[in-house]
Amino acid sequence: MIKIAVLGYGTVGSGVVEVIEKNKEMVNKKAGEELEVKYILDLLDFPDDPYGDRVIHDFGTILADDEIRIICETMGGVGKAYEFTKLALQAGKSVCTSNKELVAAHGPELLALAKSNNCNYLFEASVGGGIPIIRPLNYSLTAERIEAITGILNGTTNYILSKMEYEGADYETVLKEAQEKGYAERNPEADVEGHDACRKIAILSSLMTGKNVDYRRIYTEGITGIQPRDFAYAKQMGMSIKLLAISREEKGKTLAMVSPFLIDAGHPLHMVNGVFNAVFVRGNMLGDSMYYGRGAGKLPTASAVVSDVIDCARHIGKVIMCFWDAQEAELAVIDQASRRFFLRVKTEGADRARALFGAGTEKVTLPGVPEECGLITPVMTEADFAESYGKLDGLCVGRRLRLEA
Amino acid sequence: MIKIAVLGYGTVGSGVVEVIEKNKEMVNKKAGEELEVKYILDLLDFPDDPYGDRVIHDFGTILADDEIRIICETMGGVGKAYEFTKLALQAGKSVCTSNKELVAAHGPELLALAKSNNCNYLFEASVGGGIPIIRPLNYSLTAERIEAITGILNGTTNYILSKMEYEGADYETVLKEAQEKGYAERNPEADVEGHDACRKIAILSSLMTGKNVDYRRIYTEGITGIQPRDFAYAKQMGMSIKLLAISREEKGKTLAMVSPFLIDAGHPLHMVNGVFNAVFVRGNMLGDSMYYGRGAGKLPTASAVVSDVIDCARHIGKVIMCFWDAQEAELAVIDQASRRFFLRVKTEGADRARALFGAGTEKVTLPGVPEECGLITPVMTEADFAESYGKLDGLCVGRRLRLEA
Repeated sequence: MIKIAVLGYGTVGSGVVEVIEKNKEMVNKKAGEELEVKYILDLLDFPDDPYGDRVIHDFGTILADDEIRIICETMGGVGKAYEFTKLALQAGKSVCTSNKELVAAHGPELLALAKSNNCNYLFEASVGGGIPIIRPLNYSLTAERIEAITGILNGTTNYILSKMEYEGADYETVLKEAQEKGYAERNPEADVEGHDACRKIAILSSLMTGKNVDYRRIYTEGITGIQPRDFAYAKQMGMSIKLLAISREEKGKTLAMVSPFLIDAGHPLHMVNGVFNAVFVRGNMLGDSMYYGRGAGKLPTASAVVSDVIDCARHIGKVIMCFWDAQEAELAVIDQASRRFFLRVKTEGADRARALFGAGTEKVTLPGVPEECGLITPVMTEADFAESYGKLDGLCVGRRLRLEA
Repeated sequence: MIKIAVLGYGTVGSGVVEVIEKNKEMVNKKAGEELEVKYILDLLDFPDDPYGDRVIHDFGTILADDEIRIICETMGGVGKAYEFTKLALQAGKSVCTSNKELVAAHGPELLALAKSNNCNYLFEASVGGGIPIIRPLNYSLTAERIEAITGILNGTTNYILSKMEYEGADYETVLKEAQEKGYAERNPEADVEGHDACRKIAILSSLMTGKNVDYRRIYTEGITGIQPRDFAYAKQMGMSIKLLAISREEKGKTLAMVSPFLIDAGHPLHMVNGVFNAVFVRGNMLGDSMYYGRGAGKLPTASAVVSDVIDCARHIGKVIMCFWDAQEAELAVIDQASRRFFLRVKTEGADRARALFGAGTEKVTLPGVPEECGLITPVMTEADFAESYGKLDGLCVGRRLRLEA
């Protein structure tokens, strides 16, 4: 029997208890031992909950209990969660978490702490919700040099963009609806401004390079300012608009960014709609592979946490390998990254824009919209694009978008 | 230093040597020790090969060499490969294989043999080529009760069907081209009749149920007889035709089959084209997830074999859990499985067919094809469909197809 504690009895924490209960037989078989939730730490009481008698308010009880070998940290944030995780690992208790903020901020430190205390810090649920992606990177793609990772890593923004695409609705209307359905927070900034996706690609980039990719240094743009008309152009071009989190090796450095991109209908990420997430990985031997599934939600995320619990149970006293050093990865500045760009200009500005961006610029017009047109530039650097774009002041409409090759 | 032997220096075997050499630094880091290919067993000599000096012809040398801890079996077939694998495992040497025939035929026996000799039998490359799917099922989706697996598991047939779909070519022409390009064997039966996909779904079904799903008991249909006109109907209905290998839990039994299916444009498997493979998994907590990538080819397949070698190297003297008992899984007979069916009838037979299949039958016509029409039946059992279909003797055109919900 292995006893575990759950920190935070919110959506994911209660999901963890539910998965362990509902799939008891399977979970115990896979763990090789019976698992039992002994404590649930929360600020509140849950007198009507079937697990209400296990709810406690003092982390010290968990820390002092030698029976507790595995702790699920489903609190979120980097305050108490960070403190409790360090104390747990120092005490030789493994920690499994869904907390991408903490993993992105202190991953290497916590992994090193786990290693030196002969226990594990696992975080499958921190990226892509229930999609197995951390473990495939760490255990499966081990014979590969990973060259690039491209992900749709935030369900809220993907839901909003899909709704705008398929229903022609505007951003504010869809955001409001997503908030009412519980798909978006009341303060949606972390999602819509790309901060959540940024932390997730920081984690994946770190595992890709084996070094630390600091999320604060990743160029990040969100989805605000995207208009229904942008989707009309996208459709005309056989494309879709997705918030992509990208990381790739470029001349020995790591180029990481989060931004909305136009992607072609032929790209496997094109079909990833609604709250689904996907991670597209390019290896030097395998080529392209993709991992797709529910990137959020109570049970999918909890399922990933419990898979970590099972892994910890199978490895009591043994350290599971994870290559993520504290050494900072060298990040490429995005100015010199090259790609094509999409912009919209007033009709009277089209000639000037084409003169600036060059003869290879392609023009896209929408039926019934004579006052503006869309332009796709040739491949150029971010810096060159920005310079020319700056010269079109007053002639542009909406915001520019990047094209994913 | 861990020394390994490669059995069979063909496409996959030489790929294994290439991956270990090309990604040496990464592979050794992940394995935790330096790996060295000491022997290559083959019937032929390779005097001009850089590894030619390691080629030997006697398996006894490998077996007797205590330095050899891990063996890659990339010979294929169930004769010598079976014999050598048993001898290796009995000697406590782990075996990593791409040989789906052997895994499907003797998986539980070889796993038990490995376990009792404190070594491992791993077969990531046996299904889906380079796509991580065995390890995600065994290590990642551990908190799930897997309810269904649906795969595009054969690259040759998917290539042929994609070509027919996008180029309107007929089966024979495309098969010939695939043979010239090396995507199809000179004797293509194992692929086009579904036998290869059948073995792969037998392996996945066994891991899904934890019991043995005998490939010889899986209902299997291939892609012969599919005509360009079937794709014209599919396009008209917004669908595609794919050879699917399916396994799902149904009332405590396992329903497994291989057959061409019509699938909707909204299904994630719809976009899996050419030589790509994908496995779609439904878990009771996670819901749907999908694993996509190159299902065949020298380096992708070899990469999966080497990932197994690395796993073995990390677990010398330890048994990696794999739940696949010798006990036979209870298979459902497909007669009682329910779904919709597609058939083509001569125009004069349409009324008779609709009378047989019921009022819910939908009719599809192709412009410029007055002599026949397509029909989609309501949901009905295989048995009921077969009975009515038999009564349309002489009125049907081409072959009938199943619809994947």
